[in-house]
Amino acid sequence: MRIKVVNPNTTRSMTATIEACARTVAGPGTDVEAVSPTMGPASIESHYDEALAVPGVLAEIAAGEEAGVDGYVIACFGDPGLDAAREIAAGPVVGIAEAAMHAAALLGRGFSVVTTLGRTTGRTWDLAERYGLRRSCLGVHACELPVLDLETDPDARKIVTEACFEALDSDGSDAVVLGCAGMADLCAHISEELGAPVVDGVAAATLFVQSLVTLGLRTGKRGEFAVPPAKPYAGLLAPFARARTARP
Amino acid sequence: MRIKVVNPNTTRSMTATIEACARTVAGPGTDVEAVSPTMGPASIESHYDEALAVPGVLAEIAAGEEAGVDGYVIACFGDPGLDAAREIAAGPVVGIAEAAMHAAALLGRGFSVVTTLGRTTGRTWDLAERYGLRRSCLGVHACELPVLDLETDPDARKIVTEACFEALDSDGSDAVVLGCAGMADLCAHISEELGAPVVDGVAAATLFVQSLVTLGLRTGKRGEFAVPPAKPYAGLLAPFARARTARP
Amino acid sequence: MRIKVVNPNTTRSMTATIEACARTVAGPGTDVEAVSPTMGPASIESHYDEALAVPGVLAEIAAGEEAGVDGYVIACFGDPGLDAAREIAAGPVVGIAEAAMHAAALLGRGFSVVTTLGRTTGRTWDLAERYGLRRSCLGVHACELPVLDLETDPDARKIVTEACFEALDSDGSDAVVLGCAGMADLCAHISEELGAPVVDGVAAATLFVQSLVTLGLRTGKRGEFAVPPAKPYAGLLAPFARARTARP
Amino acid sequence: MRIKVVNPNTTRSMTATIEACARTVAGPGTDVEAVSPTMGPASIESHYDEALAVPGVLAEIAAGEEAGVDGYVIACFGDPGLDAAREIAAGPVVGIAEAAMHAAALLGRGFSVVTTLGRTTGRTWDLAERYGLRRSCLGVHACELPVLDLETDPDARKIVTEACFEALDSDGSDAVVLGCAGMADLCAHISEELGAPVVDGVAAATLFVQSLVTLGLRTGKRGEFAVPPAKPYAGLLAPFARARTARP
Amino acid sequence: MRIKVVNPNTTRSMTATIEACARTVAGPGTDVEAVSPTMGPASIESHYDEALAVPGVLAEIAAGEEAGVDGYVIACFGDPGLDAAREIAAGPVVGIAEAAMHAAALLGRGFSVVTTLGRTTGRTWDLAERYGLRRSCLGVHACELPVLDLETDPDARKIVTEACFEALDSDGSDAVVLGCAGMADLCAHISEELGAPVVDGVAAATLFVQSLVTLGLRTGKRGEFAVPPAKPYAGLLAPFARARTARP
Amino acid sequence: MRIKVVNPNTTRSMTATIEACARTVAGPGTDVEAVSPTMGPASIESHYDEALAVPGVLAEIAAGEEAGVDGYVIACFGDPGLDAAREIAAGPVVGIAEAAMHAAALLGRGFSVVTTLGRTTGRTWDLAERYGLRRSCLGVHACELPVLDLETDPDARKIVTEACFEALDSDGSDAVVLGCAGMADLCAHISEELGAPVVDGVAAATLFVQSLVTLGLRTGKRGEFAVPPAKPYAGLLAPFARARTARP
Repeated sequence: MRIKVVNPNTTRSMTATIEACARTVAGPGTDVEAVSPTMGPASIESHYDEALAVPGVLAEIAAGEEAGVDGYVIACFGDPGLDAAREIAAGPVVGIAEAAMHAAALLGRGFSVVTTLGRTTGRTWDLAERYGLRRSCLGVHACELPVLDLETDPDARKIVTEACFEALDSDGSDAVVLGCAGMADLCAHISEELGAPVVDGVAAATLFVQSLVTLGLRTGKRGEFAVPPAKPYAGLLAPFARARTARP
Repeated sequence: MRIKVVNPNTTRSMTATIEACARTVAGPGTDVEAVSPTMGPASIESHYDEALAVPGVLAEIAAGEEAGVDGYVIACFGDPGLDAAREIAAGPVVGIAEAAMHAAALLGRGFSVVTTLGRTTGRTWDLAERYGLRRSCLGVHACELPVLDLETDPDARKIVTEACFEALDSDGSDAVVLGCAGMADLCAHISEELGAPVVDGVAAATLFVQSLVTLGLRTGKRGEFAVPPAKPYAGLLAPFARARTARP
Repeated sequence: MRIKVVNPNTTRSMTATIEACARTVAGPGTDVEAVSPTMGPASIESHYDEALAVPGVLAEIAAGEEAGVDGYVIACFGDPGLDAAREIAAGPVVGIAEAAMHAAALLGRGFSVVTTLGRTTGRTWDLAERYGLRRSCLGVHACELPVLDLETDPDARKIVTEACFEALDSDGSDAVVLGCAGMADLCAHISEELGAPVVDGVAAATLFVQSLVTLGLRTGKRGEFAVPPAKPYAGLLAPFARARTARP
Repeated sequence: MRIKVVNPNTTRSMTATIEACARTVAGPGTDVEAVSPTMGPASIESHYDEALAVPGVLAEIAAGEEAGVDGYVIACFGDPGLDAAREIAAGPVVGIAEAAMHAAALLGRGFSVVTTLGRTTGRTWDLAERYGLRRSCLGVHACELPVLDLETDPDARKIVTEACFEALDSDGSDAVVLGCAGMADLCAHISEELGAPVVDGVAAATLFVQSLVTLGLRTGKRGEFAVPPAKPYAGLLAPFARARTARP
Repeated sequence: MRIKVVNPNTTRSMTATIEACARTVAGPGTDVEAVSPTMGPASIESHYDEALAVPGVLAEIAAGEEAGVDGYVIACFGDPGLDAAREIAAGPVVGIAEAAMHAAALLGRGFSVVTTLGRTTGRTWDLAERYGLRRSCLGVHACELPVLDLETDPDARKIVTEACFEALDSDGSDAVVLGCAGMADLCAHISEELGAPVVDGVAAATLFVQSLVTLGLRTGKRGEFAVPPAKPYAGLLAPFARARTARP
Repeated sequence: MRIKVVNPNTTRSMTATIEACARTVAGPGTDVEAVSPTMGPASIESHYDEALAVPGVLAEIAAGEEAGVDGYVIACFGDPGLDAAREIAAGPVVGIAEAAMHAAALLGRGFSVVTTLGRTTGRTWDLAERYGLRRSCLGVHACELPVLDLETDPDARKIVTEACFEALDSDGSDAVVLGCAGMADLCAHISEELGAPVVDGVAAATLFVQSLVTLGLRTGKRGEFAVPPAKPYAGLLAPFARARTARP
């Protein structure tokens, strides 16, 4: 089984971390590869960044389809391009916010999300609503650490851990969800410190995709998520017209 | 006052129709210009098309900011790129689905939406939910006419009108919302045939933007919709890095 | 185009202020007139006041129908009599809470309402729910200033402004809605002090009605909002029987 | 214990029927009196009728307060004036739609409402939403019989019974709620024919008020439902100013 | 009329208190008997306790059916076994959380619940959601007093009263619901101290069952709540097979 | 890794089928054992059956804790005893309705559930609501086949397959969820016939538990799901008192 993990930002060091986390949990017969797109923002911290990360994500899904990939993880907590990716992929596609929230919902009544910048919390609430988990999501807490500082700030782990402690206490939640793919490698440590379940979406999504492939489950193709109709694409994005001829 | 109407698809004949409809309702002091992006799909009929229309829309918003535009309409019923556009524009930005649904909510208890392809109805329900109007939205009805056939199929007006009649009857609704910018020029005719209010989002959004500008209202910039933080953009999308330095 | 703004309370000085605010934003071809009913409470600060303001509002709508008015604004933040007014008016009717909340929803993720007495906040939540905007309404804040004191208390502007500052901060909202028609003339000043969008429902509703009339949109008359069936009315309210023969 | 049942319309024959139904179920120590207001519509079949029935209802509540009544039923399925009545009454006030829906919610998963004219179904949905019972309310069915025809049409019982049968079948509901006070005397018969629970709001509200009085429970007076502040009332409605000095 | 109040825990002193409270409010023609099951936990303070209290509750309902009981109260604030009891009882069955929340909803906009241990608050929110009253339930407050300490701790009344004061203030609620059958005898005292309505579910449920029986209303038996199909039961629970042959 | 699958009914042939389905999908390092309780109903087709299946389920969880099991599946579509099981188990516990609905939510916009008897559909809606997936659950369809007939009726597969076809068409759903553990072995066949994703909860829950254990995630124990407080248990259920001393 081949799973492709797409990190929607173009920062390759983060992609390497993500790949390591995904590989740690994947089963023995599962081959995991993580990639960054060839175009788009270095990190995703706004609706603008997120919207412009999507073309790169879709190009990676399209390439995966040609290469016979079985399932995909979109490894940014905004789950950018998820609906479109489901249209062009033959196998399942899971976002890390989606996976982390669904997993956390299995661990108790409610969870808290700890994320990077405050300006992204609205998007997290939107996703919780979309996935039906707004009632389970008891709070979204920003630690105001920019995404790429997670890799470089020597206090990053401490800052995120403290935010997790505060989130658990103020929300009375049963678990914490880490709201950024760049926090994936902090998960085990924080969980140990906290003495409470901490969910990293990268690992969770990898295992959910592996589970769906094992179950023979893929996106339903009877309607909304059928392969998109073919049509001309203009300008810079002309190459994207061909991506729509997905594997049958 | 200058309002820029961005048709997210690249079909210029449709843009011309949209511009005419917007101009018909704009006030005497309002200058309306409609444009198509230089990149992206010829029509939007899938999540994939919609996602890939967004970069072109954002480029047009960025260009508008440099030209001193006061407010924007996004003229595709999926309201693609709306959140991101709000981040980079100084003035108000309104989507046509958003405007049409809010307007219809002022006309009675509930409205029906008549749209093009069945595969897009899910997106319409998502938007109704997002705008708080899922309870007001009593039904979404596809007439299975591709977007560009609205311009070329000699029976288009008849097909859409019949779908409107059926929607009113089956939903017991008070009004009909036309679910595609390409239907803008059919609005007056259908309304007359139906004897019920019919809302075209292009005209409605134009007047809502004009109203907001007159009221001195623009997107709140205290948090989620502040100008995005600057950062490197890679590859094909490198030019988009600069768009984030919006007008103060 | 003739728009009639009905101030549901009988305090004429407030009606004059309301009229001035509405006229400031109306387009060149729009004639705006504001009135107070001939019966009812001097201000509306309870469900009791609101219920008893309605007959006077409906009498003004009925008089407007005879005079050929094109559209109506109900200028009290409880939107009293809105459904009944929609039944008897041929043109559109918009309440100021309705208009302000819908307008604020176009400016970001969420808004705060700043209102007069705490006992009226329940009604505001009811309206937010009814209009589908409960999720967008992040808080309702009373400054405990009686309605008529807005005109006479020399500190009124300061008190309301401070409540707006506190609302923005505690709710993390993108905009503020002024929750009383008596605050209409404070809007520009407060917005400037706050550096955030502030929505006055009187001005917003005036432009929404003007927009609906321009779009040829009026209340749907196919069912719930058709002209009420004729029947005897007894006692003090006997004159209201005739109001139901609205303009075709 | 004294319970006053206010029929908001002015048709005294219907008031007599309502009184008989209420008395049948009241306990031995409970004195039930039903009244019609001295002003307002002969029947309530529109938002307009309902709004204009409210002053008469409130006058009856005020009179009841002077006479030492312990609790009130508002006997019209739109529950007109309920919030305002709660402000001016010292004891509990219950609407018949409110009582019937809460009672039906105790009888299974979901109920159907059978009502008179189709134009009133929107109001019923509003009330179900307000009372939190929209999910329990599986359908609202109009038999298109005007309210006063319930007393005069020889087929009334048959028409309503048939609508109940259809409602049970199409909704798969566990119980039926009769959506008009004018159907109170049909309840026993229909229930027997249907072989399913049928709820008449008049009887249910009478027993709920009796229960609340027995329990020593009355409307909370700490905030929203405190006695309204005193103020001038103008014109025809000037007499209503005094009603606000409720019993302590 | 015979009403059987089932205290799902096996502490007979609490059952005696419950019986006294129920008898105080029952009408002259109503015979009230309270019982404890012969099996199960001494108090209910977890999902585990609650699940294991259910067989004993159902055995008491089954015994009641053989004895010709007219209606039942389940006197634990988690309403354990309510759905199953409705299947096997011919008459109405009401839980005390259900009754208290519905009663409180008739007293104003919102209520607070004051309960025993913090770990049970999740269950209370679940029930509020299930009964449609989550919006009316403004807060659930634990005073961290174990259930059986309500009978033995000399400060119990003071502790609960203080929690009620804090709940009213922090939630801005109109009424308080006592979240444990063991608080039934505190209700009058706390209400007097608080000067606000306080709802005891035991008394409320008793009167609601009495009301339903008087109205001739019982659980709908057309579908979900019909008598369960007969089948073998194994082991310790074999005797429960016969309980399903309820009175016709 | 050891996973224990508890079939809450006592029919061992069904337990054998369930075990086979779970083992088919489990990873190489996962040991799966399925059991039936020693007490309770032969099948679960009512709230009554479900309530009485719970003690047996909890006894199996308690036994699993002593035996060092890592995680549990509750293999009945009503997810009986899930909350209580989470309190007493150290590792994760997942219900098959829960797993199947969450898995189906990853495959498109909406799913249909096909179940056995119509009387159980209410419970399915309750669970969809509880898991946040009511909006994703587009329909619940009963094929009116008793649970144990799934094993013996030669037409069972055909009947269920036809119900799946009808569900997909009438709901316009993207996937089908099989609403009974007894349908687990039909899943592959039906999926092939349908050409659409079909989710069996037994297999899905097994992989979700396996995933959670791999991720080091277990039920949060900080509050609601902490080990229940110790206390006396009376009568037949006295042995259950000890189950609460779960593994640390």
